[in-house]
Amino acid sequence: MEIKVAKGGICAPKGVRAYGIKEGNKGLAVIEGEGKAVGMFTSNKIKAAPVRFTKKQLERGRIHVIIVNSGCANSFTGEKGVKNAERMAELASSFLGVEREAVAVASTGPIGVHLDMGLIERQLGEVVKGLTSEERGSAAAARAIMTTDTFPKEKAICINMGNGEPAVIGGIAKGSGMIFPHLGLATMLSFIYTDASVREEVLRRSLKEAVDNSFNMVVVDGDMSTNDMVVLVSTGRSVKVSEEDFKAGLQFVCRELAKLIAKDGEGATKFIEVRVRGATSVTDAREVARSILRSPLVKSAIQGERPDFMCGRIIAAIGSSAIAGDVDSRGLSIRLKSGKEVIAVKKGEFMDLSGVAREILRGKEIVIEVDIGTGEEGEATAWGCDLSYEYVRINAGLH
Amino acid sequence: MEIKVAKGGICAPKGVRAYGIKEGNKGLAVIEGEGKAVGMFTSNKIKAAPVRFTKKQLERGRIHVIIVNSGCANSFTGEKGVKNAERMAELASSFLGVEREAVAVASTGPIGVHLDMGLIERQLGEVVKGLTSEERGSAAAARAIMTTDTFPKEKAICINMGNGEPAVIGGIAKGSGMIFPHLGLATMLSFIYTDASVREEVLRRSLKEAVDNSFNMVVVDGDMSTNDMVVLVSTGRSVKVSEEDFKAGLQFVCRELAKLIAKDGEGATKFIEVRVRGATSVTDAREVARSILRSPLVKSAIQGERPDFMCGRIIAAIGSSAIAGDVDSRGLSIRLKSGKEVIAVKKGEFMDLSGVAREILRGKEIVIEVDIGTGEEGEATAWGCDLSYEYVRINAGLH
Repeated sequence: MEIKVAKGGICAPKGVRAYGIKEGNKGLAVIEGEGKAVGMFTSNKIKAAPVRFTKKQLERGRIHVIIVNSGCANSFTGEKGVKNAERMAELASSFLGVEREAVAVASTGPIGVHLDMGLIERQLGEVVKGLTSEERGSAAAARAIMTTDTFPKEKAICINMGNGEPAVIGGIAKGSGMIFPHLGLATMLSFIYTDASVREEVLRRSLKEAVDNSFNMVVVDGDMSTNDMVVLVSTGRSVKVSEEDFKAGLQFVCRELAKLIAKDGEGATKFIEVRVRGATSVTDAREVARSILRSPLVKSAIQGERPDFMCGRIIAAIGSSAIAGDVDSRGLSIRLKSGKEVIAVKKGEFMDLSGVAREILRGKEIVIEVDIGTGEEGEATAWGCDLSYEYVRINAGLH
Repeated sequence: MEIKVAKGGICAPKGVRAYGIKEGNKGLAVIEGEGKAVGMFTSNKIKAAPVRFTKKQLERGRIHVIIVNSGCANSFTGEKGVKNAERMAELASSFLGVEREAVAVASTGPIGVHLDMGLIERQLGEVVKGLTSEERGSAAAARAIMTTDTFPKEKAICINMGNGEPAVIGGIAKGSGMIFPHLGLATMLSFIYTDASVREEVLRRSLKEAVDNSFNMVVVDGDMSTNDMVVLVSTGRSVKVSEEDFKAGLQFVCRELAKLIAKDGEGATKFIEVRVRGATSVTDAREVARSILRSPLVKSAIQGERPDFMCGRIIAAIGSSAIAGDVDSRGLSIRLKSGKEVIAVKKGEFMDLSGVAREILRGKEIVIEVDIGTGEEGEATAWGCDLSYEYVRINAGLH
């Protein structure tokens, strides 16, 4: 099996059309493609109306259309919000001549604001006319769902079994206020389609595993926005793919999309990959990796290109993470990479953190490898970015 | 029983002398006062040498001297760090002629750096000469333990039983990088003395309760720095005080010190008090209050004086918090106060967030009252501050 990056984003798999438009901060996208569908949703205790609606729609296991708006989260909007989410599905259903039961709805934007249903109806008319299976359809949809994103996010791959026709997986995503996504408003949406023929339970298992190793390593699991949603649809128009191969392909697409989200972090000037090993379990490794990337002190030190501050704070963040038992400093090592490579902490001893270490932190893409030395099993990778004045400016609404 | 604010900080109770000096970023303080002692320590999985040392010293239940340095955390310093903490105690023991077993040690500053023992010995000589029970002794000690603090933190009270001599509780504290204290480096130290005659188990219970309702509502419990420490000592030189009265007095002192720490948050331009009620338990109310104050998105919105952004993000933060069950938006209300007062969210409905709401956010001290409407029992108050460019500047080491 060979994975090859392909063009076309969400329109790459057979049987998918998409389009979208954006007017000011109000966008609308439609993805059309009939098939088996599974989803994962925010675990926030307050769920936006479209999340509750779509969760229910997916119980049937099949959808035909996804309609997504940006510029309003339709969250914390009471009964009217529920009606508006239903109305979005009805509109899509009648414009496209599909069953209302086969429509999924997603929203992203400010909380506590009602949808402008007149605008959505007008935009929907235009988007439906533009639906296409060409590359530009995916690009338009990816752009339409952006909020504070600075670039659209698409990725597609071919899974080549070496015996004729490949299976294709393609997706789009949005998310940018992802520096602290666990605290809300930083909605992460991703829609992924495949033409691979895969059973529903395989879709479900594969999505869970891929999301745990991708979006959830940018987003802190269990602390998402009120609107987060990932939907995976299989049109089944191409070849059968084994569970193992499908999982590998799906994880690749999800990781690429997740990294694009981290790179587009609000105000980000540096992209950071944290690789943790030597933990007693994968769960612990994940927790440590995310703790490091959650720390505003670590992020500030990277912004300031100060490896000395950074290493001390990484250690404090490791110790603060919700892992089992104490951490013995004598087993803990940190290695930094960005072009060059340096050991910053070696079995509990701080190395020289001037020279090469400072040079590495001046890079735009930095890898931090941490061996916490408590076990053999646990490895995990997480992605994030630094904390800049720009983050504060964007989120303070200052101009 | 009447609580009256008094002068003299940690020197206010009978039987306590203190002093401290600061040279550049290196400070040393000594507090002398023989008595029953109890302590609470960081729950960080990596504990600094002085934390491990002092925890052990306090097992005896009595101490005579506390020696504290600033400018070096003596954390992540291996065997040498342990020896240096012991050496600090030995030095204090020989300079003051007290048992080595009766000396507690605390440190605050950068992680991964070794103590300059020559400097500590020289500073100790000077500090011991300056020890005094006058107000200026407490002031000097409070100043000596500062790191990024912009002002020293002291508080004392008299507990007046109406029948003669009062009992006194006085303390000092340091802590400033407290915007995200749960992620380390933001060491919080507090030393509190009393001349009230109180049994050891009452001291222990009172400290736990007071810290839970004060320092732990600035610091996110369970996610402290590697060096956090609160020590309470009773010299017993004054009258007996009932458990109830002592608890009230101690909590008052701890809350005042905790608020000073929040007010001195790195880069803070606004002091924020979050009061939560209507939770199903006190634990849930605490968790919600801290989640709100932990959110960089909420903090950024307050910095930008944007009540509209703020309320949506408060809701997302409530939903993200680790509380039991879902939150029904129809029961949720938010009220804002700063001089004026306004209902921002009323039973799930956003009110007008221009006008008065914006005016309130322009204040320097803002109270946010949240009724989450899930229960009757749970109430809690937490303190914090906004997130500013200045926070990033300080922590990025930019000048």
